[in-house]
Amino acid sequence: MSDNTIPYKIYLNEEEMPKAWYNLRADMKNKPAPLLNPGTGQPLSAEELSPIFCEELVKQELDETTPFIDIPEEIRSFYKMYRPSPLVRAYCLEEKLGTPARIYYKFEGNNTSGSHKLNSAIAQAYYAKKQGLKGVTTETGAGQWGTALSMACSYFDLDCKVYMVKVSYEQKPFRREVMRTYGASVVPSPSDTTEIGKKILAEFPGTTGSLGCAISEAVEVATKNPGYRYVLGSVLNQVLLHQSVIGLETKTALDKYDIHPDVIIGCAGGGSNLGGLIAPFMGEKLRGEADYRIIAVEPASCPSFTRGTFAYDFCDTGMICPLAKMYTLGSSFIPSANHAGGLRFHGMSSTLSQLYHDGYMEAVSVEQTSVFEAATQFARTEGILPAPESSHAIRVAIDEALKCKETGEEKTIVFGLTGTGYFDLVAYQKYNDGEMSDYIPTDEDIAASIAKLPKVNA
Amino acid sequence: MSDNTIPYKIYLNEEEMPKAWYNLRADMKNKPAPLLNPGTGQPLSAEELSPIFCEELVKQELDETTPFIDIPEEIRSFYKMYRPSPLVRAYCLEEKLGTPARIYYKFEGNNTSGSHKLNSAIAQAYYAKKQGLKGVTTETGAGQWGTALSMACSYFDLDCKVYMVKVSYEQKPFRREVMRTYGASVVPSPSDTTEIGKKILAEFPGTTGSLGCAISEAVEVATKNPGYRYVLGSVLNQVLLHQSVIGLETKTALDKYDIHPDVIIGCAGGGSNLGGLIAPFMGEKLRGEADYRIIAVEPASCPSFTRGTFAYDFCDTGMICPLAKMYTLGSSFIPSANHAGGLRFHGMSSTLSQLYHDGYMEAVSVEQTSVFEAATQFARTEGILPAPESSHAIRVAIDEALKCKETGEEKTIVFGLTGTGYFDLVAYQKYNDGEMSDYIPTDEDIAASIAKLPKVNA
Repeated sequence: MSDNTIPYKIYLNEEEMPKAWYNLRADMKNKPAPLLNPGTGQPLSAEELSPIFCEELVKQELDETTPFIDIPEEIRSFYKMYRPSPLVRAYCLEEKLGTPARIYYKFEGNNTSGSHKLNSAIAQAYYAKKQGLKGVTTETGAGQWGTALSMACSYFDLDCKVYMVKVSYEQKPFRREVMRTYGASVVPSPSDTTEIGKKILAEFPGTTGSLGCAISEAVEVATKNPGYRYVLGSVLNQVLLHQSVIGLETKTALDKYDIHPDVIIGCAGGGSNLGGLIAPFMGEKLRGEADYRIIAVEPASCPSFTRGTFAYDFCDTGMICPLAKMYTLGSSFIPSANHAGGLRFHGMSSTLSQLYHDGYMEAVSVEQTSVFEAATQFARTEGILPAPESSHAIRVAIDEALKCKETGEEKTIVFGLTGTGYFDLVAYQKYNDGEMSDYIPTDEDIAASIAKLPKVNA
Repeated sequence: MSDNTIPYKIYLNEEEMPKAWYNLRADMKNKPAPLLNPGTGQPLSAEELSPIFCEELVKQELDETTPFIDIPEEIRSFYKMYRPSPLVRAYCLEEKLGTPARIYYKFEGNNTSGSHKLNSAIAQAYYAKKQGLKGVTTETGAGQWGTALSMACSYFDLDCKVYMVKVSYEQKPFRREVMRTYGASVVPSPSDTTEIGKKILAEFPGTTGSLGCAISEAVEVATKNPGYRYVLGSVLNQVLLHQSVIGLETKTALDKYDIHPDVIIGCAGGGSNLGGLIAPFMGEKLRGEADYRIIAVEPASCPSFTRGTFAYDFCDTGMICPLAKMYTLGSSFIPSANHAGGLRFHGMSSTLSQLYHDGYMEAVSVEQTSVFEAATQFARTEGILPAPESSHAIRVAIDEALKCKETGEEKTIVFGLTGTGYFDLVAYQKYNDGEMSDYIPTDEDIAASIAKLPKVNA
């Protein structure tokens, strides 16, 4: 099909939208390692997970064999409010770069949460409602997940308690207000509303909090209050399952116009976007039906794939959550204070970690000044102000397109544009003022936190 | 056509997008009164307007007879980056209200400027570039227009100087950073970069600025610097012309599914959104081909239609701009400090003013606490966090839908959702905290500023 017949933005019809999520694990020969009980070191059963997560989500978490899981009608209805998301040809960026490459991006930012997080939030809220729960608890750092969950809970009339890392709570009051507008209660973490929070406050009175601490508080509240469960926006298998809607739409749109991508690029923090975007493509690769270069992009300041270890580790710094086998920098690793935006989780989805370990994908790390340079170039040419997280993928998409310029190759590059940067303008300001810096952890930094990995690895 | 076959969101194909703007004035029997030279009191000629505005835009400003004006290919290309905008059926809101009415909204917020302003910004930047200019100047208050113009200038590689009302510059640093990210220079107004600015600063050393003052500075810089012109985001005929793309897309989408709207509702500040949304519908009404109720919604704190006078007035408080005949509260009128968001211009588009004067449309004013109540209800049901400006239209759409609930009428209501509220969270916070108040100007307030109307009216 000639380029002239392909629209700028490919929107699917409602009938073309996915009716089932794709469960990548079903096609993996080496399955991701199971979650372990931190006390016993044994794989967690559905019974053990049920006090923390909703029943249906526990099933999805543990299901390694069902390739397609139907998306309930209620969730599909909600998806229709902001999906399908467009697959956009970056004509203007290509022209500016002078590259023969064709660049496409799947834009997930056209909803009020400003990111792809809503795809899983609405699913998790739906199953909580279906189970007859009163509400859910969660943590949020940069705030995208908390916002998405607030929207989802508002839709299903569920109570939503968000533990927001204190420094973000104070520095990102607007994120907090969006959540409140959607009816969520937002508590700065650590707080005196939990035992763990009180303990941490007593031990470190001046602490500004961390994601791991907020997770611990949210889990405590969910398990202690009847009618509540804990929900998480990344890392877990269930989240990657829900996020497969991104990749499925992308693949349908590409197939519709006979476009074969050569390179697929996604930013990677815990892996929710990357896992969702690449799912159907990786599936083809696993089944030997097609080949693609798949590139995970992570911040140089939090390089779990490129400099971490493949081992069992805690998902939280409070060390009360299940152990997951993943590429990790150690649960006590905290990215440098100058790191802007998300992608600051110490570990990575077990599924993606296994795939990376088995050689099915590449990973690169990039420094944030070069990320904001790419973000600004993208904003000026393509019109969208990207989130810092998404801009990691932009950086590498531009780099790959520039390589094509050198070699003359007309490669097709697809990347995930996960969200918008409206709540990240403090970071943009730093970049605009020339005050943004980079920090790459030393080998000693990483070795110190790796040394604290749980004994189960021994 | 049954409701079941109508998608949630109606997106036009690229071929269905408008290829020409619609010039509403061509169908008006009583044309809007011409702009007058404030010195002579005589209608301004193209020659007199050319030092201020681009040549092609002067032509458009004065053209009262050509019904359709081709949209240049370059502008249509840019439109394709973020248009067509969706026409969305507000199923969830309808269900929540329990109304038999069908509610549709045309959502213009899915672009980085966050509003419809980009539709005219890109056109004005294009004509400036075509004329070989170096750059343009403008003013911005809440910041939507300045952001849109920065994006447009970045696309055409034009210099962009934005005079931003000082209080907004300080209170909305994020808006400022978006503009800077797009390469604009942003100056807090009043400033010492202009004669008018210096004069105002000398007279009122502590002033936090006003839109009228920023307009005066931007006009001065444009007329004193070779290769520069001034551009404006509302009020003018040329702006309404460009914004007709909103209404044309809306009408095409409705016609495609045989939907006949009964009521069309838009918020009104200077009239850019309202004039664009209603254009083709008003055209049918003027030609006697169809009838619609058309409702302009304005803030009770700045009620130019509902409590202003139809007279010649200055567009700026500095009184250096042309005189326009319009519904006005007087150019010295300043809305109460507690008024959040835009829609704070003292006057109204001459075209819309004439139509209102001739009975072709209604106007209502609403208080801001009820506006934020509607905004919150809309956010929670439809998922989009609306701009305060847009929420004026939401308020009245909900009110009309509730009337239908009482009467049982299945009316079709269409309203313009002009933008998103990501930069208005200080106002949302006030509302969430129960600290938002209303202020309705007294008759004496309005009489005082009306008393200062220019003598040309005598």
